[in-house]
Amino acid sequence: MLWALFRNPTMLQLPTYEDVAAAARRLQVQAHETPVLRSATADRLLKAEVFFKCENLQRMGAFKFRGAYNALAKFSPAQRKAGVIAFSSGNHAQAIALAARLLGMPATIVMPLDAPQAKVDATRGYGGEVVSYDRYTEDREALAARLAAERGLTLIPPYDHPDVIAGQGTAAKELFEQAGALDLLLVPLGGGGLLSGTALATRALAPGCKLYGVEPEAGNDGQQSLRKGEIVHIATPNTLADGAQTQHLGRYTFEVIRRDVAGVLTATDEQLVQAMRFFAERMKLVVEPTGCLGFAAACHAGLPLQGLRVGVILSGGNVDLARYAHLIGESGPGRGWA
Amino acid sequence: MLWALFRNPTMLQLPTYEDVAAAARRLQVQAHETPVLRSATADRLLKAEVFFKCENLQRMGAFKFRGAYNALAKFSPAQRKAGVIAFSSGNHAQAIALAARLLGMPATIVMPLDAPQAKVDATRGYGGEVVSYDRYTEDREALAARLAAERGLTLIPPYDHPDVIAGQGTAAKELFEQAGALDLLLVPLGGGGLLSGTALATRALAPGCKLYGVEPEAGNDGQQSLRKGEIVHIATPNTLADGAQTQHLGRYTFEVIRRDVAGVLTATDEQLVQAMRFFAERMKLVVEPTGCLGFAAACHAGLPLQGLRVGVILSGGNVDLARYAHLIGESGPGRGWA
Repeated sequence: MLWALFRNPTMLQLPTYEDVAAAARRLQVQAHETPVLRSATADRLLKAEVFFKCENLQRMGAFKFRGAYNALAKFSPAQRKAGVIAFSSGNHAQAIALAARLLGMPATIVMPLDAPQAKVDATRGYGGEVVSYDRYTEDREALAARLAAERGLTLIPPYDHPDVIAGQGTAAKELFEQAGALDLLLVPLGGGGLLSGTALATRALAPGCKLYGVEPEAGNDGQQSLRKGEIVHIATPNTLADGAQTQHLGRYTFEVIRRDVAGVLTATDEQLVQAMRFFAERMKLVVEPTGCLGFAAACHAGLPLQGLRVGVILSGGNVDLARYAHLIGESGPGRGWA
Repeated sequence: MLWALFRNPTMLQLPTYEDVAAAARRLQVQAHETPVLRSATADRLLKAEVFFKCENLQRMGAFKFRGAYNALAKFSPAQRKAGVIAFSSGNHAQAIALAARLLGMPATIVMPLDAPQAKVDATRGYGGEVVSYDRYTEDREALAARLAAERGLTLIPPYDHPDVIAGQGTAAKELFEQAGALDLLLVPLGGGGLLSGTALATRALAPGCKLYGVEPEAGNDGQQSLRKGEIVHIATPNTLADGAQTQHLGRYTFEVIRRDVAGVLTATDEQLVQAMRFFAERMKLVVEPTGCLGFAAACHAGLPLQGLRVGVILSGGNVDLARYAHLIGESGPGRGWA
């Protein structure tokens, strides 16, 4: 019965804007209200008024903190006592570890044995217990499920969870409050947590604003899913945008996205590197490749933007410093940004 | 007679906080109110509450826009019609060119023949006319004076001018309004425009706040000047902090600094690079070496900061991208930031 409910998307209880507003109240003290920055050069390039919502300046360097904190803040006392478990090698791991520390609960993070040491260290630095697995011989979901059952932990997935989605939606809620009305909004798309949360905020606060997701050209499963009308699974895409290397949308995120989103665009890795250079040189911001998806599409996807008020969410800034220096430096791929 | 007035510092008409407040009104529409950002890591490192005023996110990438715009906005109609002249190979050139364009007046910028092409291009991009000179055979001050006389232009120096100082003081005015009371404030020191303007704001708005200037260890003329009680001239110092390669304080800036500033500290180039890495990795901000002086001193100068509310002005973010990538990358000097 329960299984049928999960299989049938029309029976899913989708999160609403009320959930986003409640998440914003929970996050009020703990999350940064990140600034909305402008650039005269960007305005000139796009012949538009561009508003950059800087979630790279969020705690732990990405919007992911919002969803993680919101989900954990809703735990019952018993759940809090036992703690949370998550599997991730990226921003979600650090977000869960930090949110758990702030809420005084234990966090277990399942990470591949070959995860970059910096990410393992960062997760441990936020107080998370890291459990390693061999990604060639072990199934991380099975491992996490076993640990969760053994220790009574609550599993929080990286995107396909109503509380995570509602938390991510608070970034766009802030953006509309800070920037006023927008005609068009561009948001990075991986598993769809940020895009579907943004859709809930847009639907309620700016129904006239056209919302686009942007994913790496090498992994356009979101685009394919919208065309096909069902969730399309792909192999892990080969792209610099490591935050958008997801293989498929989630059940919740897909339903919200197909209901509320005007379309899904793509950007190439070279366009992402050009955008990274633009942000460093012109806006003095470190933005990770995934965070550049929105602006790359604004520059290259051929949308008519002239005279419009355009929002762009910069989703995060977590990129290994040596790798970052290589990408923006002389030896990096494809010089120039304009 | 007039000369005696200029030579005798006690007869100088120093700018006041009223000038800073008037400058803030002039800048209200044109300058960004730059954000004040926090970092839990910085707080932990310094055992203090640290407030970073991000003038690297100011228009044209540095606080210099404030002083330039304020000075030009005060021109008479006749001065506006003839235009402004400045000599600079750095941020002041771009600031004057941009402010002049916004106010609809011509700008002439005297730059050395061997100035980096990127800076020449940026100044031209803002609409300035660039006049080149050979810095081995020509005297830029004489050239600028001749051009000013021939064309009726008004010369705006980079720091030693009451209107420039008052404009720079608006950054600290905003900081106090945004962050509330501070116990201590650290500000980069080159010619002293930013530091003396900050002193005017601090004196009026936060008299209990101790204000420190920070200059490169290789060029500590400010420190020497305070000790000696007069302006000390030095050879152009060899430092990464190109915005603080000045050879001496100005007459106005020295008088305000010696009246209002608690002390002048220094930072080494290696400490500046460590701070640059910290800002990129932990705060997702591109800060130029000069802009790192305040935080480098907070980390290394041995000030007792524990439990204090500490302000740090990040003065700018204009650094050639290839050079920046080299400095923060694997091949850069002295790894690590902690």
